Amino acid sequence: MTNKTLTVLGAGSWGTALSLVLADNGHDVRLWSYHKEQAEKINQTKMNENYLPDILLPETIIAYHDLEEAIKNCEIIIVAVPTKAVREVMKKLLNYIKNPVTIVHVCKGIEPGSLKRVSEIIKEEVPEYLLKDIVVLSGPSHAEEVSLRHPTTVAVASENLAAAEMVQELFMNTNFRVYTNPDVIGVEIGGALKNIIALAAGISDGLGYGDNAKAALMTRGLAEIARLGTKMGANPLTFSGLTGIGDLIVTCTSVHSRNWRAGNALGKGESLQEILHNMGQTVEGVRTTKAAYQLAEKYQVNMPISIILYKVLFENLNPKAAVDELMTRKKTHEMEDLVNILQNE
Amino acid sequence: MTNKTLTVLGAGSWGTALSLVLADNGHDVRLWSYHKEQAEKINQTKMNENYLPDILLPETIIAYHDLEEAIKNCEIIIVAVPTKAVREVMKKLLNYIKNPVTIVHVCKGIEPGSLKRVSEIIKEEVPEYLLKDIVVLSGPSHAEEVSLRHPTTVAVASENLAAAEMVQELFMNTNFRVYTNPDVIGVEIGGALKNIIALAAGISDGLGYGDNAKAALMTRGLAEIARLGTKMGANPLTFSGLTGIGDLIVTCTSVHSRNWRAGNALGKGESLQEILHNMGQTVEGVRTTKAAYQLAEKYQVNMPISIILYKVLFENLNPKAAVDELMTRKKTHEMEDLVNILQNE
Repeated sequence: MTNKTLTVLGAGSWGTALSLVLADNGHDVRLWSYHKEQAEKINQTKMNENYLPDILLPETIIAYHDLEEAIKNCEIIIVAVPTKAVREVMKKLLNYIKNPVTIVHVCKGIEPGSLKRVSEIIKEEVPEYLLKDIVVLSGPSHAEEVSLRHPTTVAVASENLAAAEMVQELFMNTNFRVYTNPDVIGVEIGGALKNIIALAAGISDGLGYGDNAKAALMTRGLAEIARLGTKMGANPLTFSGLTGIGDLIVTCTSVHSRNWRAGNALGKGESLQEILHNMGQTVEGVRTTKAAYQLAEKYQVNMPISIILYKVLFENLNPKAAVDELMTRKKTHEMEDLVNILQNE
Repeated sequence: MTNKTLTVLGAGSWGTALSLVLADNGHDVRLWSYHKEQAEKINQTKMNENYLPDILLPETIIAYHDLEEAIKNCEIIIVAVPTKAVREVMKKLLNYIKNPVTIVHVCKGIEPGSLKRVSEIIKEEVPEYLLKDIVVLSGPSHAEEVSLRHPTTVAVASENLAAAEMVQELFMNTNFRVYTNPDVIGVEIGGALKNIIALAAGISDGLGYGDNAKAALMTRGLAEIARLGTKMGANPLTFSGLTGIGDLIVTCTSVHSRNWRAGNALGKGESLQEILHNMGQTVEGVRTTKAAYQLAEKYQVNMPISIILYKVLFENLNPKAAVDELMTRKKTHEMEDLVNILQNE
């Protein structure tokens, strides 16, 4: 594949780790940071100290703060900013894009208020004549492990298979395996909503409830995500894949996961305000819980875990009371829940 | 519910933990042990020291070594012996059963050679006029956590819903939630084959490959279990439930899991012989891998993880080469694999 002009927007841990994958594959990468100082420091030290400490970045990754410069003549833009910043960054981008671009987003969230998925935000903001394709890249992939070249598999989804295959080719290497999937909605919903279940799993762990309780929460959490996603137009099978159960597992069971850590601290009695203050980085799950609460209402889907978590985060429900409520729901036939997934509730 | 005469066969950690659940619900429990000394020690110390140390057993659990005495006038028999012992124990049982019984089994394995599921073994050995119903109880449930009354959820499956509901009623309490499911085959296959994936996940962890790799292995592992199970007659949805993904999660991510620990030691370079010798307890996954290898051939199902693990366990394939081979399979569309689940391969 010929070397393409690539820009990664967002120099957090995931944007930086993906830049490394691209650089490993021989591409020159422009890594745009919102913060001028961070961009300068990355170029000086060849490290992104706050996000991926101890990882040396090759010369082929150059950090930018000037957005115009960063995307000049760019063919492929990888969007790795927090979900809440996507719309604003897209608006800014429009001032500088001259030719149609492929936009790959790696964001895992839902826009508060509008309840839009990230690809919907991009479509709304970037006019058709400037947009070749939208591709979403998602899966079980802690940035820290990717930067250490540990084996990782992800999926790329696009309405246009050729675009997904082009992005597959771009990122694929021995350590980083990329599968294609046509289901954009399912991949986006799975990636966004798993953060809610990670918060809930963290709470259960913080309360000392053990692995049995956590596995049950994760299983029922996946069921409610699949229920909602299917009603929104996703293929239910996507939730059994890398971007569904795969990403859920990694997010709920790893100490790397910010959402799990935030939930764990909640379970141990810290307040949400303290936790968010101490973390410093974005905890997407908190905002996503609000969105899921509204989506459950909009699509009339039964989502007990998301709704109870909403009450914990925003209505001061005691975490222990919340998990106990989930565990003591009336006895039922397991298949009622599961069959509902395929029957659109 | 009236107090029933209950016998639990097998005084390992799971049989003992389930006896505790039954005792908590007010039942008198006869706990049969294969080992005379163990039975005596349990009655003397009110502990099952080798399997659930530090857990006090109530007076309502009485251990037996004499099988005839243990099942006298018994209405419900809970079978918690290793899978390889089920057939032999059923044969012995026949000498003493006088009236039809309900048999609940909690075994997670496949019989080597015959490739039979445990409910099939029971049906073969116990004649119809002595068998009321067969029920299987399975799910994400480490015995250690159940004995500590940590929240746990399981499923019970039977061809006869009324029998499943009777067993649900028997075990259900605030800490131990029981769901019914009509899919006996799916529940048995999920419970048995997850041990293979736990071995593989342990190897990956033992090699230091990280959470991304493990989540990918688990996701693809579940897909191959569902592929086989569906071809054997299971409902594919069962694999998205507690006895499928739920049990897989708990087995692959917990240090309690013997199968994970055995795999982890393999990944660190120990030999299978050393490991089995050091563990002392049954590692069902080793035998199940052999069965899965044969089932894959019999049903003509693509099961790459099971087949590679077979080569590691029985043909001295190097564990690192094995995981690397799994990670570097040719790039593919994720949905090909997933769609195959529902299309019976």
